Amino acid sequence: MTAGESHGKGLIIIIDGVPSGLKFDVSCINPVLAERQKGYGRGGRQKIETDSADIISGVRFGRTTGAPVSVMIKNRDFENWKKILSVSEISGAVGEFNVPRPGHADLSGGVKYAHHDFRNVLERASARETAARVVSGACAKVLLKEIGIDVFGYVINIAGVLTDDDTRMGIDAVKKRISELDKKYGANLRFPGENEIPVIIRKIRAAVEEGETLGGVVKVITSPLPMGLGDYTQWDKKLDAMIARSLMSIQAIKGVEFGLGFACAGTPGSKFHDSIQYSAQKGFYRASNNAGGMEGGMSDGEPLIVKAAMKPISTVRKGIDSVNARSKKRVKTVYERSDICAVPAAAIVAEAAVAFELANAALTKFGGDTVAEFKLNHNNYIKYVKNF
Amino acid sequence: MTAGESHGKGLIIIIDGVPSGLKFDVSCINPVLAERQKGYGRGGRQKIETDSADIISGVRFGRTTGAPVSVMIKNRDFENWKKILSVSEISGAVGEFNVPRPGHADLSGGVKYAHHDFRNVLERASARETAARVVSGACAKVLLKEIGIDVFGYVINIAGVLTDDDTRMGIDAVKKRISELDKKYGANLRFPGENEIPVIIRKIRAAVEEGETLGGVVKVITSPLPMGLGDYTQWDKKLDAMIARSLMSIQAIKGVEFGLGFACAGTPGSKFHDSIQYSAQKGFYRASNNAGGMEGGMSDGEPLIVKAAMKPISTVRKGIDSVNARSKKRVKTVYERSDICAVPAAAIVAEAAVAFELANAALTKFGGDTVAEFKLNHNNYIKYVKNF
Amino acid sequence: MTAGESHGKGLIIIIDGVPSGLKFDVSCINPVLAERQKGYGRGGRQKIETDSADIISGVRFGRTTGAPVSVMIKNRDFENWKKILSVSEISGAVGEFNVPRPGHADLSGGVKYAHHDFRNVLERASARETAARVVSGACAKVLLKEIGIDVFGYVINIAGVLTDDDTRMGIDAVKKRISELDKKYGANLRFPGENEIPVIIRKIRAAVEEGETLGGVVKVITSPLPMGLGDYTQWDKKLDAMIARSLMSIQAIKGVEFGLGFACAGTPGSKFHDSIQYSAQKGFYRASNNAGGMEGGMSDGEPLIVKAAMKPISTVRKGIDSVNARSKKRVKTVYERSDICAVPAAAIVAEAAVAFELANAALTKFGGDTVAEFKLNHNNYIKYVKNF
Amino acid sequence: MTAGESHGKGLIIIIDGVPSGLKFDVSCINPVLAERQKGYGRGGRQKIETDSADIISGVRFGRTTGAPVSVMIKNRDFENWKKILSVSEISGAVGEFNVPRPGHADLSGGVKYAHHDFRNVLERASARETAARVVSGACAKVLLKEIGIDVFGYVINIAGVLTDDDTRMGIDAVKKRISELDKKYGANLRFPGENEIPVIIRKIRAAVEEGETLGGVVKVITSPLPMGLGDYTQWDKKLDAMIARSLMSIQAIKGVEFGLGFACAGTPGSKFHDSIQYSAQKGFYRASNNAGGMEGGMSDGEPLIVKAAMKPISTVRKGIDSVNARSKKRVKTVYERSDICAVPAAAIVAEAAVAFELANAALTKFGGDTVAEFKLNHNNYIKYVKNF
Repeated sequence: MTAGESHGKGLIIIIDGVPSGLKFDVSCINPVLAERQKGYGRGGRQKIETDSADIISGVRFGRTTGAPVSVMIKNRDFENWKKILSVSEISGAVGEFNVPRPGHADLSGGVKYAHHDFRNVLERASARETAARVVSGACAKVLLKEIGIDVFGYVINIAGVLTDDDTRMGIDAVKKRISELDKKYGANLRFPGENEIPVIIRKIRAAVEEGETLGGVVKVITSPLPMGLGDYTQWDKKLDAMIARSLMSIQAIKGVEFGLGFACAGTPGSKFHDSIQYSAQKGFYRASNNAGGMEGGMSDGEPLIVKAAMKPISTVRKGIDSVNARSKKRVKTVYERSDICAVPAAAIVAEAAVAFELANAALTKFGGDTVAEFKLNHNNYIKYVKNF
Repeated sequence: MTAGESHGKGLIIIIDGVPSGLKFDVSCINPVLAERQKGYGRGGRQKIETDSADIISGVRFGRTTGAPVSVMIKNRDFENWKKILSVSEISGAVGEFNVPRPGHADLSGGVKYAHHDFRNVLERASARETAARVVSGACAKVLLKEIGIDVFGYVINIAGVLTDDDTRMGIDAVKKRISELDKKYGANLRFPGENEIPVIIRKIRAAVEEGETLGGVVKVITSPLPMGLGDYTQWDKKLDAMIARSLMSIQAIKGVEFGLGFACAGTPGSKFHDSIQYSAQKGFYRASNNAGGMEGGMSDGEPLIVKAAMKPISTVRKGIDSVNARSKKRVKTVYERSDICAVPAAAIVAEAAVAFELANAALTKFGGDTVAEFKLNHNNYIKYVKNF
Repeated sequence: MTAGESHGKGLIIIIDGVPSGLKFDVSCINPVLAERQKGYGRGGRQKIETDSADIISGVRFGRTTGAPVSVMIKNRDFENWKKILSVSEISGAVGEFNVPRPGHADLSGGVKYAHHDFRNVLERASARETAARVVSGACAKVLLKEIGIDVFGYVINIAGVLTDDDTRMGIDAVKKRISELDKKYGANLRFPGENEIPVIIRKIRAAVEEGETLGGVVKVITSPLPMGLGDYTQWDKKLDAMIARSLMSIQAIKGVEFGLGFACAGTPGSKFHDSIQYSAQKGFYRASNNAGGMEGGMSDGEPLIVKAAMKPISTVRKGIDSVNARSKKRVKTVYERSDICAVPAAAIVAEAAVAFELANAALTKFGGDTVAEFKLNHNNYIKYVKNF
Repeated sequence: MTAGESHGKGLIIIIDGVPSGLKFDVSCINPVLAERQKGYGRGGRQKIETDSADIISGVRFGRTTGAPVSVMIKNRDFENWKKILSVSEISGAVGEFNVPRPGHADLSGGVKYAHHDFRNVLERASARETAARVVSGACAKVLLKEIGIDVFGYVINIAGVLTDDDTRMGIDAVKKRISELDKKYGANLRFPGENEIPVIIRKIRAAVEEGETLGGVVKVITSPLPMGLGDYTQWDKKLDAMIARSLMSIQAIKGVEFGLGFACAGTPGSKFHDSIQYSAQKGFYRASNNAGGMEGGMSDGEPLIVKAAMKPISTVRKGIDSVNARSKKRVKTVYERSDICAVPAAAIVAEAAVAFELANAALTKFGGDTVAEFKLNHNNYIKYVKNF
């Protein structure tokens, strides 16, 4: 659960149900927060902030205690917003934000909560809240690492330029290639296709000049998951459904697909389904992974593969037609400092969201109040699966 | 919440939280159940069953009482399965189902719950459970109608053959066109594109002959929703996220997208976002609906537009490579009576899933223990929105 | 989750999350249902019914499959109520029930759901719903037995006549004594104090003659629980809080207390708290059990001891002052067949409610999708506790 | 949801789902926090702290915005605990707390989360967490005041000395009497019985000298509630069950009862149940309130009356027998600064817990995203009840 506004005092995150004994401190969080802030095409704000997390509770001497972990990310820019976002009543007026921006929560949120000053909406609806989700994802990733699960989010499409991404390459190879390319091009694109990078950079530069914004597609992959995370017995326990909810709830995400996704519509059954193989050494495995590692709402033993489509940033410098909510006059939206393209950042948030759901699914499956108990139960299960 | 197996005694559905005073009886359920069973390309099973619902509780004299509504759909075929699916211990052996079918929950579910006889898995994981979801959707639709909301699911792609569907046509026009085309071609395809229908019919016939199965894409649209259903203040309250979870939990669904969906990646911000307009008569409205009626996790006043991709049916007559779970020998999957293409049925299930989430969102927003109170609160809100 | 009305077609229960492989059939349910119906002082209705459960799903060949277990208890008396409780509209009028009975949900429920005919309320609010809870409790008890936990509910006070119950006697001894006394007095009182039984029988007889009803106090005890079920880290995870909710939700329960309960107010700290002891053989244990086995919202290794106070049955033959909801005229309540004293039945329901919460707490702690996995995780924890 | 340790950096509270437009600032919180810290018999710690809340988010210009309200209570004493409770690893050892205190979560919590240093447990299990609950209660009370509901918690029994409290006196009269008596005796006992106050003061003084601790009973009452809050249709929606859970989850509470509570066991039905009256002016009302305002899991139109028993503080200066968890040697518990009697503070926490549940029930019943909408829906319901 999270709280906090974009330019307010700070973001607050409470992560409940973390087993005790997990190594967790700000060094698990801050690098990911920094990563979220980088990325070619991000606006000026990211430079001001350099987010840094403060763990308030639930950790002692570098290890979780079992108590709820709470984290605060102070807003370093708050001094400049002290009056505009004052918690208490102020004397004197503050300019209202009266022109709702299409693509944002402004208008519907303002109507819902009766705010003609949409700042009351946008401060909470802002994608800055994703920093909070990155924090819970960081904690989830540390826990998953204890049972050998790695999660990685990256970019496969910016502004319609997409890479012919080889899914069977494996998470380590993808991470390595991206790290090399990002270094080579100095661009933090988190994009694995070398041929397309120059095109993308050109597109982003052009967008900057035109006052335009760009969307894209992110992809999250994992190392092979143990079979049977999630559940088929009740619709709201299905792991793919949980992950879809989690990804779709990220600001600006408009689509989610597993494995082949929408392309499944044109693939006949005999070619789509991943045939089952067996070897004494590996146990059961698949010859392909069109399902993206998800069958019947459960992990099927293969790596998870999921994609999410991100719409272009809604705050567009060139302005979009809108209406002043007080005067009802037709106006262009007003520009406030924003990004041109946040797809690489969205990849990190998506990675966090997937990690969070996987950690939940693993805790449901293996139980355990301590990391030791959680791992013991996990290891016993893995042995059992081997001998199934 | 639902229970029940595919060939067991029956399906049980409990719908909790329905306001009292709602007109609801089997005449709201049975036609939709029948609709789900029709459709070109469905297998023999659908003819045996002719599902019919029995309302067990929560309704008196044709109106809900406020108590939980429970419904049972008896399995008319159960006599033939009495021994195979006996609840109590039986004397004598029953043949096991030992070859897991790729695409189904068989293998992961069997490992998870320790069943080498995958019948214990498939009976619950079966898409027959969607009949239960159609029942709760039927109830949700009746409630939504009380506040003027209509929901409709149909097909826009079968086997890769897609229609150039005009989103701004409106729900009534779409329903009318489909009803006419289905009558004209006697095919129950629920597909609005006349040019493509003959191609689709040919594809389905070919698939029958080859022992192949086919997937597709369904689309659910609504009449314009009141602004502000759902919420932006916490990630797990976002309406698009709830709907994504609900749709992705339907058997065989691999992708979900709102409005332009994945195509948003290639559309620049100034063209993607739906500009805000105002007229004294209509209040605020949009010039386009690329967002699919969802902004910031809330309804934005436009019709909802959401699509879901369905993979081809997993039970393929020509067989897929698999492994016998007892002997570990390589075998082809065994065929049990199944459908060739269930995309039109999936459209009805998707319609039900969306209706269910919208009814929940409306009850959260408007409260009310009786239909009268629910409507009064709704109407007062609509008045307020008009004057915002 | 349950559904169903008192005189309707039947009660429906869905129990979700039961591990697979649990031996469970109607022989686990029906004896407890029968037990609930017996008891000195129960009305005529109990003889008509002889409840018997039908397992609809989730069990195959006598063992759970992991799918939701659903159970139906048909109402054998429904034939007589077919018209009065018709689901569909009927021709001709049915007499309304217009005089709300103090102590029942009639008036508040009627106002809430807009029913002037209180039959629409009482059918669902009726204590008959406790039969459904006995079913889920029966399932929980079988699961708890797998990890050596026994639960027993009995009576310690009827109509103010209470027994000097020795808490340290142990669950087996209490069960034995009650079984002997119930046989000896042929009375199904579930009461362990021989001296008081004749007084209680006299009181019940007198109540029958006077058209009066009687309340009492029930007590639920368990075998020693493993330390650490429940949780102290968040208020809504505390096991005593969960059990209090569950017991207070039983019809007619007005108070819940653990261990010494309200008597703790007059006991100084040095005498109240249960001193901690240790022996190599037993590990940690307590010298007393004033806390009722609950400290910090967790089981502390001792047996659970909890009591619940039951108000006298609200349907009183001699009548209570009320008002006709249509005419607003002052009248006496009308008598419908009912019990004089249902405290022994309440003991069985309380036992079921406690078992249900303990099973939930154990599943949360030990995880596991199969009984084998659940037990393995449990046993490993017990070993760990021994060596703490 | 709350997080934070007793002596850590601070407590964090997130209150989700507060309608927008509610007047809420620290002046609603701090006086209640101060009240919680006062009370005859409280230890030295309360003087050090003088808690003061910092609203981090969800409030702007003194009114809630609809976003989650988060509050931080910094621990002013944290400087002294910086090393002992360091979040990050420290160099050098810190003394462990190895002797579990009976009555606390120490032992079970230590075993559960694998801490031999029980400080990892007690910091979270500490009753200091109740300050967090007072904060959410403060917010709930402001919301309830908008629909005319007042809630008050006080003390009716300390150390077995109880007052003959007249329940029909009404909330305002009780508040007035207590305010006068507390002033007169300068004792912050929150106790309405003048005759008993001197006895109680003597008992507390004696306990201080003997190194003893004392328990008691608190009572929470409200102004008359609207009929029909809560629900009878599903066991976990019953309002009395929710309140019982909430109260039982407060540290040291061992019993909860509504109205006559356990005394109902000895009262015959015709005398227990609150007869229903009607007058054109008042509508339906009751001649007595033995039920404590709760029938069928719903408010019945009368004031709520609920009591909770508090065990004596577990940290007893004279020591209790225990065992060192490392050496397994028998020792006396070690004393850390603590209270002698915290019953008046518990009354404030109980008041907060009840207010929180009532606010939830009201929001469920009336819906509404803004205070204006919430009130409008409430007022329409009240009108409807009048005309029922």
